[in-house]
Amino acid sequence: MVMNMPNWLKQRAFLTPDRSALVFNERKWTFSQLFDETCRTADRLYSAGIQKGDYCGVLAANQPETVFTIYALQQIGATAVMLNSRLTTDEIAWQLHDAKAVYLLYDQEHTEKAQLIPSIQSLFITGIETVSTAAEVRHTFSLEETCSIMYTSGTTGRPKGVIQTYGNHYTSAVASALNLGLHSDDTWLCAVPLFHISGYSILMKSVLYGMEVHLMEKFNSKRVNQLLKSGDATMVSVVTAMLSGMLNELEGDYSSRLRCMLLGGGPAPVSILEACKAKRIPVFQTYGMTETASQIVTLAPEDSLGKLGSAGKPLFPCAVKIDGADEGEILVSGPNVTPGYLNRPDVNKQAFQDGWFRTGDIGRLDEDGFLYVLDRRSDLIISGGENIYPAEIESVLTGHPAILEAGVTGVPNDQWGSVPAAFYVNKQPVSEEELIDFCREKLARYKVPAYFVKVDALPRNAANKLLRRELAKQWSEQDED
Amino acid sequence: MVMNMPNWLKQRAFLTPDRSALVFNERKWTFSQLFDETCRTADRLYSAGIQKGDYCGVLAANQPETVFTIYALQQIGATAVMLNSRLTTDEIAWQLHDAKAVYLLYDQEHTEKAQLIPSIQSLFITGIETVSTAAEVRHTFSLEETCSIMYTSGTTGRPKGVIQTYGNHYTSAVASALNLGLHSDDTWLCAVPLFHISGYSILMKSVLYGMEVHLMEKFNSKRVNQLLKSGDATMVSVVTAMLSGMLNELEGDYSSRLRCMLLGGGPAPVSILEACKAKRIPVFQTYGMTETASQIVTLAPEDSLGKLGSAGKPLFPCAVKIDGADEGEILVSGPNVTPGYLNRPDVNKQAFQDGWFRTGDIGRLDEDGFLYVLDRRSDLIISGGENIYPAEIESVLTGHPAILEAGVTGVPNDQWGSVPAAFYVNKQPVSEEELIDFCREKLARYKVPAYFVKVDALPRNAANKLLRRELAKQWSEQDED
Repeated sequence: MVMNMPNWLKQRAFLTPDRSALVFNERKWTFSQLFDETCRTADRLYSAGIQKGDYCGVLAANQPETVFTIYALQQIGATAVMLNSRLTTDEIAWQLHDAKAVYLLYDQEHTEKAQLIPSIQSLFITGIETVSTAAEVRHTFSLEETCSIMYTSGTTGRPKGVIQTYGNHYTSAVASALNLGLHSDDTWLCAVPLFHISGYSILMKSVLYGMEVHLMEKFNSKRVNQLLKSGDATMVSVVTAMLSGMLNELEGDYSSRLRCMLLGGGPAPVSILEACKAKRIPVFQTYGMTETASQIVTLAPEDSLGKLGSAGKPLFPCAVKIDGADEGEILVSGPNVTPGYLNRPDVNKQAFQDGWFRTGDIGRLDEDGFLYVLDRRSDLIISGGENIYPAEIESVLTGHPAILEAGVTGVPNDQWGSVPAAFYVNKQPVSEEELIDFCREKLARYKVPAYFVKVDALPRNAANKLLRRELAKQWSEQDED
Repeated sequence: MVMNMPNWLKQRAFLTPDRSALVFNERKWTFSQLFDETCRTADRLYSAGIQKGDYCGVLAANQPETVFTIYALQQIGATAVMLNSRLTTDEIAWQLHDAKAVYLLYDQEHTEKAQLIPSIQSLFITGIETVSTAAEVRHTFSLEETCSIMYTSGTTGRPKGVIQTYGNHYTSAVASALNLGLHSDDTWLCAVPLFHISGYSILMKSVLYGMEVHLMEKFNSKRVNQLLKSGDATMVSVVTAMLSGMLNELEGDYSSRLRCMLLGGGPAPVSILEACKAKRIPVFQTYGMTETASQIVTLAPEDSLGKLGSAGKPLFPCAVKIDGADEGEILVSGPNVTPGYLNRPDVNKQAFQDGWFRTGDIGRLDEDGFLYVLDRRSDLIISGGENIYPAEIESVLTGHPAILEAGVTGVPNDQWGSVPAAFYVNKQPVSEEELIDFCREKLARYKVPAYFVKVDALPRNAANKLLRRELAKQWSEQDED
């Protein structure tokens, strides 16, 4: 089996040099131009010392220069450690250290944050002016090589670096095309962050399909609606909170050119699905994660109401099964599934069994093989498309001298779908303001609990395991009062 | 790297059970129905003794039962040795013996021929009535497993079995989709033989894409034109001789739903390309072979006149290079390229070098990287889409007691593109009729020379190598007289 492929962007620029590759505000690049910009960026990074095999943090917004940087690292053969720009400097420093990253690439917007990160050589992406040596252009990419790392947290609260190989990205893009089709006039609107797999995977699809990407710096429902109404984009990735905002603002219909609204981040409320049906918006709900290099299970629009609440069926090269007779942990397999977590043999041993990846999520399959996700792994909170792990917040809170123990759960929120709420038992009096300030220092803003609830004791089972579902129940009962 | 995939047809029937899979005259099958028919066929074949790992000859026409048989062998895990039904019994017997095939599956139309093949257990596909044991349904296919064998000849005249793995077929279908796109309403018209890679690959695309195939028993230009005019097919594979016949008959235009006329078998004459342009027919010229599991280089319609005579650029996962400074042997690489010829380590050693497959064809690349095929390997004659190897015919001719030596070359023919012409030096008088009868006994009809020319000596170079190009030159000069 051949494991090498032609260097992706080079091959794409060779095959279809004049096709549109990237649109950002009023600026446009063909694949030939994109490859030129990428090579120039690669030369700069290479001259600054970045070499094949290096792990490099990328702390940057959705900007064309970030796209050039992502592709430039591929040209050099360095691995991109994609950093969530909303993380605190402590969180970023921890991830860079864990990945043994030797460089941190940052853009204008993240200069201040980047310069606070200790023990790493920080490089301002557009600030490297010296080009002493041209980077060697690679002829081939190996599908087994690590392309990117993205961190994800788990029950322990300690984030783990997900290895994404070139093979993972390639097979993910292919599996998606076999599911959603591939039209020569497709444009994918990217209003999700490039540091998430949802955004990064759009870039990989672009180069593999020869497809235009319309990059948006930040999600803006008015602007997204404009682009979908004018027919400038035919595909778009959203999470429920984004779609909800778009529908609220939408007057009239989207263009008939819109052929896929790819909706991630948990099952959508029926009201949204019905609104989409009325507006003839082709919603494809999808279940995926950093570990599956994006989509792995997808629900076609025609099933969205008939199979309400389902995430759909697996992509063609993938499989899903339940560990249990009826409900149980969701196991997935496929060529897009990560080979493992970086430097975590302990975790990998538990997460991978007989070719299956244990997602940690709980679900069931109906008689037609449709997947229903009942509970996200480790009581995962999905807030506006960001994954939040209760254990991570709990571990910060118990680090405060006044707190004895803490339990965090997601509670419903109209704008974000869900937000974290913290329940705590204290040793000494402490104000909510102080707890907020304490969390803000150590946690990205979106992880800071929206609510703090003082309790006498946390609900625990016989084995003393925290019952986060009970917290959620307490919250909803309190809400009804 | 994961090398296993879900069992293709089973997965497809699970994912999109109600989509149309196969149309043949007035009969239709969804993927669910196709899978049922296939399982029934698999049970019959299994009950008749066919097991995983067996090599089974398939001698059958383009009929639904042949499709069920092809998929059924995949279900069992047996390898299909696809036999050109135009071959003589001697030729078929040789291929079956060479492949160590243990069964020969044949249909009604080929009963007589099949029963003449010695030393093999012949099974009439639809004649197996006893079902004693249900075949075990496989959960996965390994991409490295051999799916099919197709024979191709070479310079020695002795055919070689090309190994086509599941991985070859999968990556070929994917590479083609990345090139031609993939629409949910595509229907591929298959009027080429299923025993050729051109036809077999359409079936693999069907199951991998979830796409309808319209199967035609025999090519009929009137019927093909009807289907393309009505919009019942959006894609079709043809060779020049077929397209030429279609254009001659065509009144009016094809439906605007026709989005790909995939044209194989050598560069098309400019007159045909211009006629297609005038009729707005999207012609994709392509270069491929049994060893590349179909397409490997393709020319987009917009380049067909600007790059006249070119076969185009490689598919995304593939590469092409020339062994030589300017003109030279064409080398190709990609995941769709065969791992080798069956049981022929000698030939494989020469044919594969550093990850490249030596096609034997001669070509050049222009400054934009477009491939021009200058001469088919081993003076290959392509006649109406069939490959004819001069050496094979020469070896038959010199077996006749009256013939001293023989040289065969392709000469132009309006209907077939090219037909074989034989030049010979005799030892004793012999009539053309006798030579024709002699050839017909030993060679498939399309290989029997259309012309016999008695000469005093054959053109040879200093190393005594036959100069077949000189023969072609002599013919064209004689033609002008």
